[in-house]
Amino acid sequence: MIRVTVWNENRHEKKNPRVAEIYPDGIHGAIASVFAGQEFMVQIATLDEPEHGLTEAVLETTDVLFWWGHLAHGDVSDTIVERVKARVLAGMGLVVLHSGHFSKIFKVLMGTTCDLKWREANDRERIWTVAPGHPIAEGIPENILLEAEEMYGEHFDIPAPEELVFVSWFSGGEVFRSGCTYRRGAGNIFYFRPGHETYPTYHHQDIRQVLLNAARWAANINPITTPVYGNAKPLEPLPS
Amino acid sequence: MIRVTVWNENRHEKKNPRVAEIYPDGIHGAIASVFAGQEFMVQIATLDEPEHGLTEAVLETTDVLFWWGHLAHGDVSDTIVERVKARVLAGMGLVVLHSGHFSKIFKVLMGTTCDLKWREANDRERIWTVAPGHPIAEGIPENILLEAEEMYGEHFDIPAPEELVFVSWFSGGEVFRSGCTYRRGAGNIFYFRPGHETYPTYHHQDIRQVLLNAARWAANINPITTPVYGNAKPLEPLPS
Amino acid sequence: MIRVTVWNENRHEKKNPRVAEIYPDGIHGAIASVFAGQEFMVQIATLDEPEHGLTEAVLETTDVLFWWGHLAHGDVSDTIVERVKARVLAGMGLVVLHSGHFSKIFKVLMGTTCDLKWREANDRERIWTVAPGHPIAEGIPENILLEAEEMYGEHFDIPAPEELVFVSWFSGGEVFRSGCTYRRGAGNIFYFRPGHETYPTYHHQDIRQVLLNAARWAANINPITTPVYGNAKPLEPLPS
Amino acid sequence: MIRVTVWNENRHEKKNPRVAEIYPDGIHGAIASVFAGQEFMVQIATLDEPEHGLTEAVLETTDVLFWWGHLAHGDVSDTIVERVKARVLAGMGLVVLHSGHFSKIFKVLMGTTCDLKWREANDRERIWTVAPGHPIAEGIPENILLEAEEMYGEHFDIPAPEELVFVSWFSGGEVFRSGCTYRRGAGNIFYFRPGHETYPTYHHQDIRQVLLNAARWAANINPITTPVYGNAKPLEPLPS
Repeated sequence: MIRVTVWNENRHEKKNPRVAEIYPDGIHGAIASVFAGQEFMVQIATLDEPEHGLTEAVLETTDVLFWWGHLAHGDVSDTIVERVKARVLAGMGLVVLHSGHFSKIFKVLMGTTCDLKWREANDRERIWTVAPGHPIAEGIPENILLEAEEMYGEHFDIPAPEELVFVSWFSGGEVFRSGCTYRRGAGNIFYFRPGHETYPTYHHQDIRQVLLNAARWAANINPITTPVYGNAKPLEPLPS
Repeated sequence: MIRVTVWNENRHEKKNPRVAEIYPDGIHGAIASVFAGQEFMVQIATLDEPEHGLTEAVLETTDVLFWWGHLAHGDVSDTIVERVKARVLAGMGLVVLHSGHFSKIFKVLMGTTCDLKWREANDRERIWTVAPGHPIAEGIPENILLEAEEMYGEHFDIPAPEELVFVSWFSGGEVFRSGCTYRRGAGNIFYFRPGHETYPTYHHQDIRQVLLNAARWAANINPITTPVYGNAKPLEPLPS
Repeated sequence: MIRVTVWNENRHEKKNPRVAEIYPDGIHGAIASVFAGQEFMVQIATLDEPEHGLTEAVLETTDVLFWWGHLAHGDVSDTIVERVKARVLAGMGLVVLHSGHFSKIFKVLMGTTCDLKWREANDRERIWTVAPGHPIAEGIPENILLEAEEMYGEHFDIPAPEELVFVSWFSGGEVFRSGCTYRRGAGNIFYFRPGHETYPTYHHQDIRQVLLNAARWAANINPITTPVYGNAKPLEPLPS
Repeated sequence: MIRVTVWNENRHEKKNPRVAEIYPDGIHGAIASVFAGQEFMVQIATLDEPEHGLTEAVLETTDVLFWWGHLAHGDVSDTIVERVKARVLAGMGLVVLHSGHFSKIFKVLMGTTCDLKWREANDRERIWTVAPGHPIAEGIPENILLEAEEMYGEHFDIPAPEELVFVSWFSGGEVFRSGCTYRRGAGNIFYFRPGHETYPTYHHQDIRQVLLNAARWAANINPITTPVYGNAKPLEPLPS
């Protein structure tokens, strides 16, 4: 069993009737429903809960954390960001979605600005698989067509992904590295581009399959041997 | 269920009583026993069988192929090498062990000489985990001590591994990139250094755990979408 | 001084008046002219010369080899391919252009099929820089617009590039990893997509800058320490 | 001309006569002398100067910044760290030395703890080249022997290096990824392990050659095209 926690800012849903209509159970609800009937246990956490819903207890029982945020990155407490970062480095998986590229947690883990180009103009998007044997691409067609989405364009100021799984094409002329994996400490991180709040992207079957694959890829199934740091005795005789 | 085929040259076992004593069921037998009682089905194939035991039927029912060879790389037919290569590119996992670094199949997949330094002098080896969150390192201690092994030293003429999981220390003063992952086509490849025929390395519990982890990592569990190559119609209107 | 050799199949130029008109000095002539007045010495070699112009003497005095081929990959002798491969592994740079993706030399160095999608239909191409600090991207704008080119689309069956410098957008809906670096042995390899024979691509100023940058990046300026392979004496005392 | 700035904490030299004896001109002096008589201009900056010597004016005239710190990472102002980080992302090279692994600037750029094992016990160190064609390895022998150094051992909690150039062997049984390259934004970063203050490491000819190579590799010689971020107009017609 993989224990997933879906974190959502959950502000657009309250303010914008269009978003509430597309995601009546919240963006978190749509994401959480991906895991129903599979080998997962799911928790929900949102910004306006105490500790943003990310208490020590919740994080300790989370194998993979999904993160959707946009309007209110600045409202996320630095203390919680440090807590999440520590858990990632200790082995928790992290899947950062769409506008989460500008979240505090993604920026501190990447070390770069994570800036990019964007446009809200109903671009058509085609997400191409460039690593067809990667576990996150299993069962995904050659390209996923999204009839309308927000555009994100290069340059995307991230460290070069350790594995690049998807690249997006946009009708307006741009490309984007849309599926990027990283390992940080013992934690596995996946960034996945699509999912602007005004489009029904998280109801798309192939997008949902990517989220499912990502959770399986990001989870450390077996116990990790925690490295020992600091002053260390020699294992072999030293030269005299 | 993951279908593993263990391929072994199986010549040392017939010629050298020391090897036969350490591996009474052959090196392949020791490797195959790793998967007993787990979610695997295992086949055995050896050099002196027709088609080296790697018929189309066997490869079609193989998710991950383990490869141990040493003396007789030149006796492996180019036709079979091409067949194995095609299956790897189509998604079969490949785990190349020890002296398999000089096998035809590894060299054609790597594109380099795969040359290295070596010494048979009972060096002590310590295999250090440098990627503790990698699935192949799950459950593996910080370092695995092998009291005596053949030394392999840098420079190892391979493409830089996509992920470097293990680095070996040798008492004689050398280091070696001992656990290296690659993806080629839709196939996942893992090279793992230890396993000289005159040492009981494949009976070592941690080494066996690495082999188990490697099989799980290398297998493509779900169906892969085979890319379509060649002349392609436009998906969007072209400029007139 | 960097010694560049430009290798061209030089068949289209003889058969197709359109190509001869665009490239009156051959594709090789257009490429060679990039290096005039800079810190380079340039040689030309073509398929129909003895040894395809790639004698031992020529290769020994080549720091970076550019390769353009298309129609006649099968006419390139395996002996010469092995000779070029050996020189690359020993430290010669190699820049493979456009349809050279299917050349024997690129395929043996990559270990994959190097297959892709293609279309000759005057697609518009935009080549985006995804690694703006990479030396091959120096002085290159955010995107290079080619009004018409042959389309190459994913999946491109190559090993994941060690550094991905450029990604192409095509009007017909495809994307492509257009600028890919590799190191093999001591040699540096760069694949660069554009340059179909019926378009004036190698006269485009930004494309020419990429070729110039690539030659500088691929050249090993200083002597390389050749690794020593084979049986090695211990450098430190072994356990008794 | 490449403009190098050598930053040194410069505290050990004032407190510990042994260090002052080994490095009478400071560690910074020993490093700066590497560049004398070459294509470099060198500035020095130290912790106890105003703004730690890293004023806007100094950073604006720096192509590559070398960083040595150990005792006093906590005394480095966060403002200066942010200033250095911004310059790295904008294209300044950064070479982090030895105990600089725990500097604020390295940690914020890496996003991990950068923790490791260590021992001050006169271990013998052998630094092996694993990427002989990399520009930072040019002219470096197969292995560099340091008769005595502080040991640094895995696990080293860094992002997997984009290119791994050197791996160290230590007599006490450990290994370490000693030469690691990264690109962040438009800046090139090299971490190089050796250089504990109580050993004459920076007087060693091969170590000095690595520093020279690193400065050349890390410098962006030509102007970089600064990416444009934010709201972007379409370059091609959007679907209606």
